[in-house]
This record gives sequence, C-alpha cells and structure tokens, in this order.
Amino acid sequence: MADVTAPLHLSPQDRELLFSEARTASTFTDEPVTEEQVRAIHDLVKYGPTAMNTQPLRVVLLRSAESRERLVRHMAEGNQAKTRTAPLTAILAVDTDFPEKAGTFFPDRAAAIRESFTDPEARRRVGQLSASLQIGYFIIAVRAAGLAAGPMTGFDAEAIDKEFFTDGRLKTLVVVNIGRPGENAWFPQRLPRLGYEDVVTEL
Amino acid sequence: MADVTAPLHLSPQDRELLFSEARTASTFTDEPVTEEQVRAIHDLVKYGPTAMNTQPLRVVLLRSAESRERLVRHMAEGNQAKTRTAPLTAILAVDTDFPEKAGTFFPDRAAAIRESFTDPEARRRVGQLSASLQIGYFIIAVRAAGLAAGPMTGFDAEAIDKEFFTDGRLKTLVVVNIGRPGENAWFPQRLPRLGYEDVVTEL
Repeated sequence: MADVTAPLHLSPQDRELLFSEARTASTFTDEPVTEEQVRAIHDLVKYGPTAMNTQPLRVVLLRSAESRERLVRHMAEGNQAKTRTAPLTAILAVDTDFPEKAGTFFPDRAAAIRESFTDPEARRRVGQLSASLQIGYFIIAVRAAGLAAGPMTGFDAEAIDKEFFTDGRLKTLVVVNIGRPGENAWFPQRLPRLGYEDVVTEL
Repeated sequence: MADVTAPLHLSPQDRELLFSEARTASTFTDEPVTEEQVRAIHDLVKYGPTAMNTQPLRVVLLRSAESRERLVRHMAEGNQAKTRTAPLTAILAVDTDFPEKAGTFFPDRAAAIRESFTDPEARRRVGQLSASLQIGYFIIAVRAAGLAAGPMTGFDAEAIDKEFFTDGRLKTLVVVNIGRPGENAWFPQRLPRLGYEDVVTEL
C-alpha cells in the first residue's frame, strides 16, 4: 500500500494534531479556555478564504453557568451534559447582514457589494456557504491551539436564535464545545471514513 | 501588542503554510497535480468531522481540455481563463443521497440514519452544511500538500449540475482550481480581515 502522506508539506506532527489523531470530544477537563487561546484561534480562521472576502461567520462565546443554561435547554438531549460541562461553548452563526461590513472587508468595492446583496435569499445562501467554510477552518484552528473541539448540530436552531439573536440578524449553524479532552472523551474506535474511490472521480 | 500565536501548538512553518502566508491563486504553472497528491489531500479531508459522520462531499476532478471546456462555459467571465489554465480543477459537490452510504459511514446505525433522512429537504440542509465544512478542510488540505487553491463560487450551479450530474444527485457548491501558483498569482496586498471584536462576542 502506497504511503499517501509522502507528498505532504505539512509536518507529521501537525498532520496528527489537525487531522489524523484529532477526535471530536464529548467530555472535557475543567481547565479554562483563555481569551488568549480564542484570539489565537480567530487569528488563524480569519485567513481562510470566503466568497468575495465576506467573512460572514460570527462567534458567540458562552462561559458563565447562566448563559450556558440558556443554551442547554435548546440542545438535543444527548448534547446537553457535555454542553453544560465544557469549559467554553461557542455558537457559530452566520451574519445575514454581512454586506454591512463591506467597507471593512472590501473597501474598494463596498458599494457594489452592498448593491449586489439586496436580495435576502442571496445573502442567506452566500452567507451560509462562506460561514460554513469558516466553521471548517474554526474546527481545525481549535485543534491548532492544542484543544479539542466537539462540534454539534443536534439542537433547535430557531429556538437558539430566538433566545440569543432577537434582531434576527444571526442564524445559528453549529455549536462547538471547546476544551481539553476529559475521561472517556471518545470511543476507542473512530467511525469509518469513506475511501478515495467513494469520494473522488475523474472526468 | 500581544503575540496571538503564543498559545498555538501548530508549528510556525505550518501556520504559514495553511493560514497566514497561503493565498487564493488566480494563475498557475503548468506543473501537473498528480493523483498521489490528490490522494494525500483526501487522506486529510476524510478525518474532518461531519454531522453523524455523513461525509457528504464528493469531488469531481477535471483534467482534460475537453472536460474542462464543458465546465468553463458555465463559469462567470472573470473565472474562465484561470479555470481553463489550472493544471487541475475540482468540482466540489454535495451528495444529496448521502444516507445511501450509511452502511459504510455508520454501520451500527445505518437503518436508523436512512430512516431519519427520508425528507429530501432535511437531506439537502444537513448534507449542504457538512459538505461545506468538508470544503473548508479541502482548501486547508490542498495547502498542506504544498499546492495553491483557487476556490470560486462565481458560476451557474444549475447549469453545471445539468452538464455533469444528470441524475440530480450531486449539487455543485464550490469549484476549486489547484496547482502551483504562476506569475502574478495574486495581488501584492491581501484583502483586509475582520478583527476579533468584529467577529467574537462573549455572553
């Protein structure tokens, strides 16, 4: 069997850190996640490409027991205990009014970008795709900071939006628990991955 | 100003390779991208987490002039020349029938997963989010292989789907040119990034 890692420029250590040894954590120690760590994560995520540099992802950090409890009741039952006990939980949401920041993210074409997004449906579609790419970068960046990520989609998104985003501007896409993995943080065996031939075809 | 990279476990070299020095390329050399390189990219992407391990991203590689030309006519004008001249172009699409592979990706719960996705709208929504996360991993993985990615969303998605995916199962999300950066592959100045305070809030 050929060594598929041979063409990588990424170091073997960082391949393990970000991909092959990284796992989705379901339990966490109580070691706090610092603002310094979140700033380091943002400092990576910000570089990832987005459509027309729109960067529509917004991150809402929940740290206190009170703010956490407001979220937990809208999580699926299987996601409640871990969301209560992770040292930090992030709501990852798309800003559906992202063109409002065009003066910052595309100063030379701000007016044109704002005009091209008067249709709310186009804003939702473009915003959701680019914010989702950024959530991919975010999960990798959490691992780059030496932390474990526990991304979840099992929740009542409308209820979370109503609870936290009363002006309707942000729409929740993914909730991620962040911290150091605790005891029995994952099953010993990783779930199977699709093979190259399942995923890639050439025309 | 504090050094935001201090808490990173990622090496400084790989931070540059994947994030801070990586740029979206618009021109490419004619050095071919090998199947070995694409296998190394897939071998990273496959580890990235997806909802219920669904892994709905499918990758269609276009290498020949003929297959390339079938795509180029559906690209926005500004994306045509680079898509014609990149050594490899990948259509990144979501498999809207992803539950069909549940026996592979979640063998212990395959029947339950298939039953929970009888609604095509739920399949589209869940599939599109997870495939988009995987596109984020894909862009990072192209860079990990020492290559430049040129992701694009400026195209007629319906026309591409009609051209390549006649059974309606795959839906195009992003098209990515892949190769070594050519002359004037990018503007000297990177477009501005949103700051921490623009993106992150704590409750």
